[in-house]
Amino acid sequence: MKHNMAYNQPILKYQNNKFIETTDCYVTEFPLTIMINGEEFATIICSPNNLRELVIGFIASEGVIMKKDEIKRITIDDSKGFAHIELTKIIDPNYKKYTQRMISSCCGKSREFYFNNDAATAKISHSKLKINPQQIISMMDKLHTESKTFKETGGLHNAAISDGDNFYEHRSDIGRHNALDKLYGHCIEYNIPIRNKVLIFSGRISSEILIKAAKIGVGIILSKSAPTNLAIDLADDLNITSVGFIRDGSFNVYSHSERIIRSL
Amino acid sequence: MKHNMAYNQPILKYQNNKFIETTDCYVTEFPLTIMINGEEFATIICSPNNLRELVIGFIASEGVIMKKDEIKRITIDDSKGFAHIELTKIIDPNYKKYTQRMISSCCGKSREFYFNNDAATAKISHSKLKINPQQIISMMDKLHTESKTFKETGGLHNAAISDGDNFYEHRSDIGRHNALDKLYGHCIEYNIPIRNKVLIFSGRISSEILIKAAKIGVGIILSKSAPTNLAIDLADDLNITSVGFIRDGSFNVYSHSERIIRSL
Repeated sequence: MKHNMAYNQPILKYQNNKFIETTDCYVTEFPLTIMINGEEFATIICSPNNLRELVIGFIASEGVIMKKDEIKRITIDDSKGFAHIELTKIIDPNYKKYTQRMISSCCGKSREFYFNNDAATAKISHSKLKINPQQIISMMDKLHTESKTFKETGGLHNAAISDGDNFYEHRSDIGRHNALDKLYGHCIEYNIPIRNKVLIFSGRISSEILIKAAKIGVGIILSKSAPTNLAIDLADDLNITSVGFIRDGSFNVYSHSERIIRSL
Repeated sequence: MKHNMAYNQPILKYQNNKFIETTDCYVTEFPLTIMINGEEFATIICSPNNLRELVIGFIASEGVIMKKDEIKRITIDDSKGFAHIELTKIIDPNYKKYTQRMISSCCGKSREFYFNNDAATAKISHSKLKINPQQIISMMDKLHTESKTFKETGGLHNAAISDGDNFYEHRSDIGRHNALDKLYGHCIEYNIPIRNKVLIFSGRISSEILIKAAKIGVGIILSKSAPTNLAIDLADDLNITSVGFIRDGSFNVYSHSERIIRSL
C-alpha cells in the first residue's frame, strides 16, 4: 500500500469577501505502531516514507539496539500502520523506568535534567572533523535546495547528514525527531560511520534535538535558527559544535568553535 | 527565583568573511518536573512563566483531574524546577497503561489511532458558538499583534482563547502543547467556561494539537497554517470546526463549516 506525503481534500475557502467550495493539499500524518518481539513498544506519528530506516533509527536512539546485528527481521505492514521487529535478544522489562528524570548535581551544570535513558545513550563526541565557513554555508544551501522538492506539501522538517564534502543524505518528515531518526537508521543499515559527520537541520536546536544529535553520534550540528540555552549547555557538556543562524553568508558558532577552521 | 524567557550569551560570529566575538540572545528552555502526591509524574520542558496554570492545564488534559477542587495544593519550586501537587484523591496506579495505542475499527475512520488516555479525555464538541469572517480575521490579527511582545526571543509558539468578542487571553511557550495547557489551566483556575470559546494558534494543526483542543473542550480552532490529514479526520469525528491559512483577509475552512456564518 502506497501512502502519499500529501492529499487533496475539499475545503470551504473565504477570499475577496466571498465563500467558494474548492480543494486544498494536506500534509499526511501517518501513525506507525512499533512492535518489538510481539510487544507494543511505541506509536510514532510520521510522514509515510523511509519507514524501515525510521524504525531502525528510532529504536537505536532509544537505546534498544546498539548495532544492526541485534535485529533479526523487520516487517512493515503499512496498510495497518505496524512495524514488527524481531530482535536477537530480549528487552529489559524495566525499560519504561528509564524515562524518569535523572537528578544529579555531580556532572556539570546541565546534566541534571537528562532523562535516564538519554544519559545511557547520549555520547560525548570524540569527533576529529573540522570544517570551514564555505562548507557550512554550502551544506545549508544544499539543504534548502533539496527541501524545495517537498515544497508542495509545505511545513516538513528537513535534515541531512554530510561529511562536508561528497557524502550527503537528505530526509524529511512532519516530525523533527523522525527526520533525524531516518538519517540515523540509514547509516546503521549501510554501516556508514557517523563520528566524523555533520548534521544539518532546518529547525531550531532545542535540548531534545541536541540530545538526539548526541545519540546519533555527530560532532557538529548546523541549523538555520538560533538554539536554546539548554541546548547550548548540553552541547558544551557533550563536546558538540553547534552553529546556527546560517543565512546570507553569515552564521553564529554557539559551542566548541575549535572545530571551525578560522584561517581564511 | 526569577527565570528569564531569554538570555544573552557569548558567541563567535562569522560575517562579511571574518570572525568576531560577540553576544546573542537564546530562548530559555526550562525543565519542570511534576510530582503528584509525592510521586514523579512527568517532566516537561517549557518557557518559565505562568507555571502554575501550565501545571493545572497539563494534568487536566492528561485526564488526571476533571475539576479544580481535586487539587488540594500546588507548590512551585522554580529554583530546582519542581512542581509539587497534592490531590484530594489518589491516582490510578495503572495510569501508564493508558498510553498504549487503541486499536478499534468500530467508531469511524480516524478513531483507531487514538491513544487510550486520549480517548478517555478528548470530548466530542457540543459547542453552539458561531463566528463570522470578520471575527476570524480579527482574532488572528490580535494573535499576531500580541505575539510581537515576545519578538525579541523569537520562535515561541503563541496561542489564545477567545469568545470572538471581548474575552481574549494570550500565552506563549517554546512548547506547542504548553501554550495551550497554560490557557486551559487559566480557565480551570478561574472557572471560565470553555465550550463556547475559540482557540487561536500560531502553528500548524497536527493531530496532537487537534486532540489537545478536544481535551480543552473548544468547538473552533483557528490557525495561521494548513492542518494535516489526520487532524482533519479527527476534527470531523469530534465535531470541531478547523480554520487555517488565515492571512491577507482570506482563510480556509477544513471541517464543520456550519459554525462559520456565511451570510455577509
